[in-house]
Amino acid sequence: MAHARAMLDTYPGEFGFPAEDLAAAIEACIDCAQTCTACADACLAEDDVVELRRCISVDLNCADLCATTSRLLSRQTDYDPTVTQRTLEACIRLCVACAAECEKHAHHHKHCAVCAEVCRACAKACTDLLNDEVEQEMRALLGG
Amino acid sequence: MAHARAMLDTYPGEFGFPAEDLAAAIEACIDCAQTCTACADACLAEDDVVELRRCISVDLNCADLCATTSRLLSRQTDYDPTVTQRTLEACIRLCVACAAECEKHAHHHKHCAVCAEVCRACAKACTDLLNDEVEQEMRALLGG
Amino acid sequence: MAHARAMLDTYPGEFGFPAEDLAAAIEACIDCAQTCTACADACLAEDDVVELRRCISVDLNCADLCATTSRLLSRQTDYDPTVTQRTLEACIRLCVACAAECEKHAHHHKHCAVCAEVCRACAKACTDLLNDEVEQEMRALLGG
Amino acid sequence: MAHARAMLDTYPGEFGFPAEDLAAAIEACIDCAQTCTACADACLAEDDVVELRRCISVDLNCADLCATTSRLLSRQTDYDPTVTQRTLEACIRLCVACAAECEKHAHHHKHCAVCAEVCRACAKACTDLLNDEVEQEMRALLGG
Repeated sequence: MAHARAMLDTYPGEFGFPAEDLAAAIEACIDCAQTCTACADACLAEDDVVELRRCISVDLNCADLCATTSRLLSRQTDYDPTVTQRTLEACIRLCVACAAECEKHAHHHKHCAVCAEVCRACAKACTDLLNDEVEQEMRALLGG
Repeated sequence: MAHARAMLDTYPGEFGFPAEDLAAAIEACIDCAQTCTACADACLAEDDVVELRRCISVDLNCADLCATTSRLLSRQTDYDPTVTQRTLEACIRLCVACAAECEKHAHHHKHCAVCAEVCRACAKACTDLLNDEVEQEMRALLGG
Repeated sequence: MAHARAMLDTYPGEFGFPAEDLAAAIEACIDCAQTCTACADACLAEDDVVELRRCISVDLNCADLCATTSRLLSRQTDYDPTVTQRTLEACIRLCVACAAECEKHAHHHKHCAVCAEVCRACAKACTDLLNDEVEQEMRALLGG
Repeated sequence: MAHARAMLDTYPGEFGFPAEDLAAAIEACIDCAQTCTACADACLAEDDVVELRRCISVDLNCADLCATTSRLLSRQTDYDPTVTQRTLEACIRLCVACAAECEKHAHHHKHCAVCAEVCRACAKACTDLLNDEVEQEMRALLGG
């Protein structure tokens, strides 16, 4: 359904990543941003909202940072490798933190189970765009 | 790939629209937001950028409004029908305007052709959520 | 501190509103977006978070719609009066709804008192940009 | 005019930074996000838009990342030091890059002169929130 790859294939210039990896990361980020927005809202409607405060807060941060990461990745005309790498690293760390928090509630809230899975997929797709230097550290974080 | 429907199916309350229509509109909005962001960037990289100023500007507005519409639709815990209807109406009008502008450049810029198609699909998915009162006017706009 | 007016004064074209009113509305929208984001977070940290669910949800919607309204108002290169008027109307209705909800909690949560005041100020600044047709209805809403 | 400090003063918990520095960074980020949005739009309306492509693209990225940074800083309920530091670092680098690009056009476009100044102020306010480890490197970048 998403058109990230179709848009990359019609871009008039070159870009800083393989098209397939870049499209996968963009689509994972927008999916994660929407899922985290919905998870925060579902948590807010649960009877045990008191136990879900941290989950709501990290969901909201993850939604905002994934949305912005998808926009930076969608703009290739003034691609800045250092800014992109730092943003990806922040995004991956936040996705992993959000997944870990959601997993604590996944057994009794299915939206948290879905959200955890989507956050881990987003962290993986973003890790595929990392430079060698930071990639090792992030792969260790994902595996941990 | 997107998880809007899976998140709606695990939401603990009721929502203001049929789940299938709501999920379709949310996914259309996030796809349109990303596509318009990429189209603005591709236009910026074209040789005839001077002819594409209006296209870039309407793309940027459409990206922002679609992203916010997807967030309002993703939050059902304090659903406000009037605000939602007015936001949908603004979003539909902007998607139609963006599609019309992109269509002017579609024959020589494929990203504009893709973007026009995605904007029209988003306008249609959002129109399916309109109340009867405003729906007639918007259907006329889409058909025009 | 904000630079909305300074940026309007250096814009190379004309815009659809008096500069003073336009700058006031842009600055009110970005202030409201930040205040609502902070109010949602403060509500989440309160002991009576259960009573604040609606407040959090409307705060989050108001933050997103005000942020997008500030962006549409900041872009004058492809100014579209109808889309802008509909977006302003949705924004005003949401600011009024957010103020009304925050006022319910204002006596025991000072952040809700501040947020209610900021939302009302934003609604007023946006109302100053409305066309005559919709302005009457919105002024009635503000007065109600 | 902005209310970031008033909202911090009514927050029911503690936060990860001195209130004065935190409020200054939040307000600098929202001012920078708005200014960069307006600068991109003004550049698009200039006769020499062809020379301003990079400026528009970096403005758009800077607007999005500053907006998200202001939101992460506004949420103290699940404060994550590592994610915040990495996001601040990406934001500072992007503000410095945006300022440097705008300065190239500042002599003939006043909006670029204003934007460069606002970006540098934002980079400085964000640097005041950095941990010692990364602060040295960022101060060197600001001074360079």
